[in-house]
Amino acid sequence: MDKLEYKPIGIIHTPFDTPQGTPIQPAGASGTAGSIEIFPEFTPGLADLKGFSHIYIIYHFHLSRKFSLRVKPFLDDHERGLFATRAPSRPNPIGLSVVRLMDVIDGRLEILDVDVVYGTPLLEKKPYVPEFDVFQAERIGWIGQKTDGIDKVVDDGRFS
Amino acid sequence: MDKLEYKPIGIIHTPFDTPQGTPIQPAGASGTAGSIEIFPEFTPGLADLKGFSHIYIIYHFHLSRKFSLRVKPFLDDHERGLFATRAPSRPNPIGLSVVRLMDVIDGRLEILDVDVVYGTPLLEKKPYVPEFDVFQAERIGWIGQKTDGIDKVVDDGRFS
Repeated sequence: MDKLEYKPIGIIHTPFDTPQGTPIQPAGASGTAGSIEIFPEFTPGLADLKGFSHIYIIYHFHLSRKFSLRVKPFLDDHERGLFATRAPSRPNPIGLSVVRLMDVIDGRLEILDVDVVYGTPLLEKKPYVPEFDVFQAERIGWIGQKTDGIDKVVDDGRFS
Repeated sequence: MDKLEYKPIGIIHTPFDTPQGTPIQPAGASGTAGSIEIFPEFTPGLADLKGFSHIYIIYHFHLSRKFSLRVKPFLDDHERGLFATRAPSRPNPIGLSVVRLMDVIDGRLEILDVDVVYGTPLLEKKPYVPEFDVFQAERIGWIGQKTDGIDKVVDDGRFS
């Protein structure tokens, strides 16, 4: 298949000016406020969204450098296969986060727990529904107990 | 920002030949087996993936027709704002599922709970980690109790 073309539907505003220092997961960004500006042509699609407390945002890692298929992730000292990590430098540099939705005011979404860099282009947004989206994963591979560090580890710029 | 260009990293094989009849969530596709063929240039990135029991797959809804910003979702009789639904016809037709990973054999991923159409182009794949990905959403808007029907409702072709 040939190339697929997408266009941003909005821009994410956050307190993080650079990848360096940005939390690496929403779980490490608890309470951090940001907003999403949805471009005017798409705002009619925001109807009924306010009823949801959490949303998926899918975005483009616009500051990531070219990918490698083996990377040393933020949470580990060993190289891992890229697809077993959440590193931002990827063949298609697509990011995924779940953030808390506090308000929708015209085309602006007020959000909390934001873990992305200022100016990140938004591609997609879906409601988060625990009945569809919560899974009992028995195995989390190399990550194991390393999730404990998630509120202390931040991006050190290695992928940008 | 201008257009963003992505290229599929693989293809998803499933028992569903058409959107009509395809489950609308992995929760409605329990036990359904499929596989993902990762293109050879990307297979070195699969190292360490086998240790994870669940993975996110991010893919292109290749059979979806042009989007509307107001849609009648599969689970409802009322029109809703597109971004408050998971309907496949979207400005950027990007889909998201969590599937069970049973095995990784060279470039082939054996998966369960697959809810997509045969031949769907894969864009991205990330490990699912409950410590990062499970959220206590207090509100799920219009969806409410309608999640009960998820194992009975299938795609009726309205978006393709």
